[in-house]
Amino acid sequence: MLSHLLHLEGIESVVLESRTRDEVEGTIRAGVLEQNTVDLMVDTGLGDRLKREGLVHTGVELRFDGHGRRIDFEELTGRAVTVYPQHEVLKDLIERRLLDGGDVRFGVTDVAVAGHTTDAPTVSFVDSDGTPHVLAADLVAGCDGSRTGTRSLVDPRSDMFRQYPFAWFGILAEAPQTSEELIYARHDRGFALCSTRTTDVQRHYLQVDPDDSVDNWSDARIWDELHTRVDGDGAKVKEGSIFSKSILQFRSFVCEPMQQGRLFLAGDSAHTVPPTGAKGMNLAIADVWVLAKAMTRFVQGGDGSLLDAYTATVMPRVWRAQHFSWWMSTMLHTDPASTQFDRQRQVAELDVVTGSVAGRTLIAENYTGIPFENR
Amino acid sequence: MLSHLLHLEGIESVVLESRTRDEVEGTIRAGVLEQNTVDLMVDTGLGDRLKREGLVHTGVELRFDGHGRRIDFEELTGRAVTVYPQHEVLKDLIERRLLDGGDVRFGVTDVAVAGHTTDAPTVSFVDSDGTPHVLAADLVAGCDGSRTGTRSLVDPRSDMFRQYPFAWFGILAEAPQTSEELIYARHDRGFALCSTRTTDVQRHYLQVDPDDSVDNWSDARIWDELHTRVDGDGAKVKEGSIFSKSILQFRSFVCEPMQQGRLFLAGDSAHTVPPTGAKGMNLAIADVWVLAKAMTRFVQGGDGSLLDAYTATVMPRVWRAQHFSWWMSTMLHTDPASTQFDRQRQVAELDVVTGSVAGRTLIAENYTGIPFENR
Repeated sequence: MLSHLLHLEGIESVVLESRTRDEVEGTIRAGVLEQNTVDLMVDTGLGDRLKREGLVHTGVELRFDGHGRRIDFEELTGRAVTVYPQHEVLKDLIERRLLDGGDVRFGVTDVAVAGHTTDAPTVSFVDSDGTPHVLAADLVAGCDGSRTGTRSLVDPRSDMFRQYPFAWFGILAEAPQTSEELIYARHDRGFALCSTRTTDVQRHYLQVDPDDSVDNWSDARIWDELHTRVDGDGAKVKEGSIFSKSILQFRSFVCEPMQQGRLFLAGDSAHTVPPTGAKGMNLAIADVWVLAKAMTRFVQGGDGSLLDAYTATVMPRVWRAQHFSWWMSTMLHTDPASTQFDRQRQVAELDVVTGSVAGRTLIAENYTGIPFENR
Repeated sequence: MLSHLLHLEGIESVVLESRTRDEVEGTIRAGVLEQNTVDLMVDTGLGDRLKREGLVHTGVELRFDGHGRRIDFEELTGRAVTVYPQHEVLKDLIERRLLDGGDVRFGVTDVAVAGHTTDAPTVSFVDSDGTPHVLAADLVAGCDGSRTGTRSLVDPRSDMFRQYPFAWFGILAEAPQTSEELIYARHDRGFALCSTRTTDVQRHYLQVDPDDSVDNWSDARIWDELHTRVDGDGAKVKEGSIFSKSILQFRSFVCEPMQQGRLFLAGDSAHTVPPTGAKGMNLAIADVWVLAKAMTRFVQGGDGSLLDAYTATVMPRVWRAQHFSWWMSTMLHTDPASTQFDRQRQVAELDVVTGSVAGRTLIAENYTGIPFENR
């Protein structure tokens, strides 16, 4: 996306990706797009397939104590989200960059950034055919995800981390949609989420112990547990054929600042959120929106002020997303260390928040996302 | 209040109080009255002095990161709270009960309830002059606070408790008001609250370790710490002469059910909240409002259905208050076990919640209180 936005300003870039194009496009990933992300894709010519295939969700359901309460995004905020998985976004971006003559290198290895604290940074790497290269760059962006190598080049003022006492066991199944909208369910046995990728492929999650293993979960046990945690009051999980099982760890991470000299971090390389708030990709897109503006100002006019302000500009959104993701996580998951008081208090919180227009609005405005900075 | 409400329905009661009238009326206590509590006092003829001396607060200020954000109750909910200390409420109630010929016994000892699971409960006690008595009653209310004896007579389905890793060090001072409204301040060194009793007497609190002692706190240290945690951005704590110092423990407690046979618990004897949400007395008043209605129905018409429904009727409000008190406490106090991430996330929460009309409304509607049940 950063490369695309820079191209629209006439600025050249090279994208280095360690995986192959097939791997990038074939790994089914989560994807709830904020209105901001949708708008940016549409406005920059990436919206055709998204508008055709994306599933617009005008609300979600929060379930607890056997009942469901809908958060009506449209009524509460005038906004909505679109379910369109991250790998579909990547397909659209890759296709568009290549059509526009963009320089995207897949399957590269040994990527190393150097000289980023000087005016002449370099990026060395080995191409997929084994040829070594060194790029001379004006600016370098570290968009290499939570297993980032570029983060280690930034000298952090602070490096904040939080582990959660739960993980998500996720399945992909060929099955009908349980509901047209996402269901976030809180149960004494743990959280469950019924989400969807397409009308035929469903993505469901169960809260499990971080040390649990997929081997402990037969298909029958998975459906039983989903029924126990979600069914009731009209809702019933629709079963199907499970074709993928995985366990996803929960953590929160923030590196500050997100820059060092000519190197700028964006997305998961700088910050990780637990998945409950559906903020990961949206936060990365918001980062590169700000970064593209700042890089453009620098490259076109020699003015580095927006680049210098990059961390300060994006940090309030990062922390807002960190709070929201923590809030949705702790409000809906059971903590193994919780007392009976804590569990009852948690149900009361869901009741107070979802029973009030103000409470539902607070969820809705964070879930659908506040507008991007400088837009 | 229960005795007063019953009297208005023509139902006789006897109030047994272990302290003397002077002790009850002379212990300066906290007091933020919800609109509901104010309305009930006014509507039942207890509002004259309250309307004259009570300080109507149409908002509070939440301070963090050196800045203050006002929660405007009136604009957000059309409601307000009134600062009028609990012992003043008690003075008004006692005076009124005695004027109405009510039977209020101070300084009693050895109170014991018996036969409450039969149709003929009794309450035995020893009068302040040493005379033993046994009362035959239709119904008994255990309104004996958090050090309750009556709670032990209820067979709880559940008995939920939570301790907090902080306490409040409270002072009373002859000093001018720091602000016309309460200031709730979050600081890395801990929470502080500037509140007021009258225009000349101020009540301030500092978060301290639960094992701290008043002996550790010289007047100079107290004012220094208040300045550090509260001052800035136009606010400055106004000093004065400290005449009381005490330490207040934090806990949450809920006993369920709140009745056993003919015995009914109300207020702190059934549930305790940490003081941050200013809910303690208001919750007790809400309990006895519901209880008075139910007792009246039973005594006047022999219909016990409202009495049987007492616990179920008041429990949603109790848990709403438990959640709100927990929320205000955890959002504003520093947990000694918190990481740097947790502290930054907490500031982000304050920013997200107070920066949004929806967030401020969620605070305001809980702080000012939802209307009483069956009113």
